[in-house]
Amino acid sequence: MRGTVLYGPRDIRFEDRPEPTIMKPTDAIIRLSATCICGSDLWPYRGIQSIAQPTPMGHEYCGIVEEVGTEVRNIRNGQFVVGSFATSDNTCVICQHGYQSSCVQREFMSTAQASLLRVPLADGTLVATSDVPPKELISSLLATSDVLGTGWFAADAANVKPGSTVLVVGDGAVGLLGVLSAKQMGAERIIAMSRHASRQKLAREFGATDIVTERGDQGVARIKELTKGVGADSVLECVGTQESIMQAIKSARLGGYIGYVGVPHGVSLDGEQLFYAHVHLHGGPAPVRRYLPELMNLVLDGKINPGKVFDLTLPLDEVAEGYRAMDERRAIKTLLRPKGTN
Amino acid sequence: MRGTVLYGPRDIRFEDRPEPTIMKPTDAIIRLSATCICGSDLWPYRGIQSIAQPTPMGHEYCGIVEEVGTEVRNIRNGQFVVGSFATSDNTCVICQHGYQSSCVQREFMSTAQASLLRVPLADGTLVATSDVPPKELISSLLATSDVLGTGWFAADAANVKPGSTVLVVGDGAVGLLGVLSAKQMGAERIIAMSRHASRQKLAREFGATDIVTERGDQGVARIKELTKGVGADSVLECVGTQESIMQAIKSARLGGYIGYVGVPHGVSLDGEQLFYAHVHLHGGPAPVRRYLPELMNLVLDGKINPGKVFDLTLPLDEVAEGYRAMDERRAIKTLLRPKGTN
Repeated sequence: MRGTVLYGPRDIRFEDRPEPTIMKPTDAIIRLSATCICGSDLWPYRGIQSIAQPTPMGHEYCGIVEEVGTEVRNIRNGQFVVGSFATSDNTCVICQHGYQSSCVQREFMSTAQASLLRVPLADGTLVATSDVPPKELISSLLATSDVLGTGWFAADAANVKPGSTVLVVGDGAVGLLGVLSAKQMGAERIIAMSRHASRQKLAREFGATDIVTERGDQGVARIKELTKGVGADSVLECVGTQESIMQAIKSARLGGYIGYVGVPHGVSLDGEQLFYAHVHLHGGPAPVRRYLPELMNLVLDGKINPGKVFDLTLPLDEVAEGYRAMDERRAIKTLLRPKGTN
Repeated sequence: MRGTVLYGPRDIRFEDRPEPTIMKPTDAIIRLSATCICGSDLWPYRGIQSIAQPTPMGHEYCGIVEEVGTEVRNIRNGQFVVGSFATSDNTCVICQHGYQSSCVQREFMSTAQASLLRVPLADGTLVATSDVPPKELISSLLATSDVLGTGWFAADAANVKPGSTVLVVGDGAVGLLGVLSAKQMGAERIIAMSRHASRQKLAREFGATDIVTERGDQGVARIKELTKGVGADSVLECVGTQESIMQAIKSARLGGYIGYVGVPHGVSLDGEQLFYAHVHLHGGPAPVRRYLPELMNLVLDGKINPGKVFDLTLPLDEVAEGYRAMDERRAIKTLLRPKGTN
């Protein structure tokens, strides 16, 4: 089969790779209906996060089960499945508390930009639909695998409730789906920070009521102005830089909540500042598996359309162009279709 | 009247001070039944936190109302009252969310080690009992004013629920009352970190099921051993140093909760480490006013006896000895009785 491999900064190749096989009796092999490129893939693509050797890429996926190991009980050949970017047994004590992305058996998926994929711990990682869904729902179902699940976790970690005033820091695909998530959870007011017209438009479609273009302390001042000096009940931090997390902390109401899902790069928090900000802070790798059944049903019932964040769709063998488009900010997020799925 | 003033490191004087008077129509004046010395008073006492001028001391108090301003509605002369160390109007949006210690009108109390005290925002700060309580309950009622309320907030912020496994970092009066709070909230297992025999004993009386004497990484290893490798569901961080908060984070279950109430001194948190620890972090100045009615009722009903943390009682005019005893760790916490209250 053919798959995506990163050789070095901005050197993405689509090349022959060994076909995945069942290695453990709890594995499944799926034929991908669609996969995509994540904002986090750009860290190694840009060389900011170094790689030691040619590295297969991709961790967002959905597709049809081709084969299962002898100990797989809940997943069958021919089913359409979505899985999390992190594998989980869904039975350990950490999973039972809803933190499947920190499962004691967790592995991070990393070879999904290909036509076939081996998924470890298939029973605990994958969720199947009752029927093979119509093609027009594939992009939105794919979104549940990571980008929607992550935005949803940000909103959940930030305690978004009916009537909440919510701020979303970051207008990437995760932030935009954080807006959608906050809307679904009943937020009354959703302020999105964005400077890009196309992203502002999508944020409004997803439920944003206000757009703030200022950043840093000016951004904080604008949020305070919009909230009568109080700040936001819930802040979704979807970037992961020192500036963005300080923006989040300073914009929250005293006693408010911050859900952070952008992997922190060089972030350091001052204990005393956090103490007097009185905020709740929660985040980490999104436990997508916890939310998958609910999110897939919302898609299947036509209640949400998170697939709209894919503003570029390419055949999988043009994956290198997909990376370029995202790197150059020509695309918010690129969906990739393996041959035979169009 | 006479009151306590700190002149410099270890220089506490009990001296003549002007009698407090009603300065705003929302004030009340109370005659103290008891006051006490807080662990946080030791920071300036030891000179670690510098003072610019002779500084009155004390922020924990209960007593009988002597006078109220013209706009005070809920508090009357002759009532026995307890108040929070932080004043609050109890009506602003921050108070409505339960964060009275960050009230928009907040002032920190600071002259309570005296015979008379002016309390601003009396209606929103003080809670009265229906009758003047018996003398034997005064110490426990005094404890609700800060030290119990703070331990309670730590447990609440750490999401202690029936059946929880709880770790308490810090065996000062707040940590010990964190143990009592966790017990009241239904924790099944309460691990207290302590190296002092008298504090271990009190921790066990308050509900600790396990005592850990190791610190740092050895302490973390011991907690993991006691929890089958999982860590604690809830960690109460009642110290405020870099070592204690790292202890808390590393000892928590992935996805667990940390409630921190020790004012952080020189604490810096690494964003990436927090992210992968997957913990919930919440703390700050305890919103004691939120909890006062409930905690006072628990005391009045004889259900809890938090006054046990006072292992030294002195006449108020011997306040300097009270500081010395706590500084030298001869006492956990010193209760002070103004003249005429014995």
